[in-house]
Amino acid sequence: MNISILTLFPEMFTGVFGQSILNSAAEKGIVSFDVVNFRDYSKDKHQRVDDYPYGGGGGMVLTPQPMFDAVEDLKHRTSGEPRVVLLCPQGEVYTQQKAEEFAREEQLILLCGHYEGYDERIRQELVTDEVSIGDYVLTGGEIGAMAIADSVTRLLPGALGNETSAVTDSHSTGLLEHPHYTRPSEFRGMAVPDILLSGHHKNIETWRRREALRRTLERRPDMLENIQLDDEERSFLQNLKNEKESS
Amino acid sequence: MNISILTLFPEMFTGVFGQSILNSAAEKGIVSFDVVNFRDYSKDKHQRVDDYPYGGGGGMVLTPQPMFDAVEDLKHRTSGEPRVVLLCPQGEVYTQQKAEEFAREEQLILLCGHYEGYDERIRQELVTDEVSIGDYVLTGGEIGAMAIADSVTRLLPGALGNETSAVTDSHSTGLLEHPHYTRPSEFRGMAVPDILLSGHHKNIETWRRREALRRTLERRPDMLENIQLDDEERSFLQNLKNEKESS
Repeated sequence: MNISILTLFPEMFTGVFGQSILNSAAEKGIVSFDVVNFRDYSKDKHQRVDDYPYGGGGGMVLTPQPMFDAVEDLKHRTSGEPRVVLLCPQGEVYTQQKAEEFAREEQLILLCGHYEGYDERIRQELVTDEVSIGDYVLTGGEIGAMAIADSVTRLLPGALGNETSAVTDSHSTGLLEHPHYTRPSEFRGMAVPDILLSGHHKNIETWRRREALRRTLERRPDMLENIQLDDEERSFLQNLKNEKESS
Repeated sequence: MNISILTLFPEMFTGVFGQSILNSAAEKGIVSFDVVNFRDYSKDKHQRVDDYPYGGGGGMVLTPQPMFDAVEDLKHRTSGEPRVVLLCPQGEVYTQQKAEEFAREEQLILLCGHYEGYDERIRQELVTDEVSIGDYVLTGGEIGAMAIADSVTRLLPGALGNETSAVTDSHSTGLLEHPHYTRPSEFRGMAVPDILLSGHHKNIETWRRREALRRTLERRPDMLENIQLDDEERSFLQNLKNEKESS
């Protein structure tokens, strides 16, 4: 897979792409990253990439020409038609389902603006997906592009050392994770629950599933709507709800 | 304000913190960043920071000692009690409201795990906030910490060059932004709407407000619930809804 990123701040990516799973996946040949400064494609004699908005008002607007030319140049690196993803606050909110969809593509092109708005014709003609990584305002699309690159790359076969890690995560099992404990068994007066030291694997499994259900009920009850439960789990959840209501 | 980040991968932050608004805000003295490797605080002779989970299972768990000691050391840099924010998929979903809340703090300490889970005692005793930047799985908390640092820093007085930019953004006005256009007035056969070239400021303002309402209705109808509308805007929205239903 290829992930190409168009940005005015390519240096922002050196730390993230030089480290950790993104770097190791690239070294294994599972993914390649191109970070391209679209200013290099500007035909303006001063290499400008933005201009004043028609109709007045504050702020600058990214002109269509450099982004169109850069995307067309990058498209030539693959055979098919790549997804062209605009990072912007108006976009569809990014989710794990979208990450899984993107991970099946041969190439992703991510467009990052910075401060400015995008000329509407970029949205209309160039872009296949508009994505926002959350309901908060960032200075530019770069951190969002890193989030997409990371969440997509870790889904590619062979990217994670432990093959099972990707599927047992929160948001993949549909429940939040149960609590974890490691040594020491007592730290500053706080003890590890006895059951985890008991060696009864079946009891531990039941405890973990129940704690995952409890945490999901407390923090993200919306996630329980899509979960398959057995009778015992349903009655455990119902008891938790009853306790909550009567307290 | 001080933003301190505990991570095993401090180099991941060099690109983002060395560029753009985060760098300029730090140079102006509006914010300071400390990126600290909590492995440096490990009392283990091999400087380990994780261990096998009690009760068995895959994956490693971050031990409490290095994070407790690192946070206590960083706390001594301020007078009050700082917010200690754990980046994790089980956390409360981060929003602009949370960014505004964080921007009023004197110090934020952000804890980033990587691959591993956190020992539950870190959650119970050390952490004041658990935050997830979205419903997707990332390899670690680092990109989330960058998103928080960026979204909080841009809210600090003087951080943005143009003081008005922070308040007119999407998610701050409560509506998605209207379309923007800049030169050329025709690009590859796509023309700028005539009204933006008309010079009628009042008409342009009405058009922009309506297009913002239209886009919000199409993409994020949930955002319209908290918006103050005048009679004309309410009837414009109602007409859009009627058109949609009859088509």
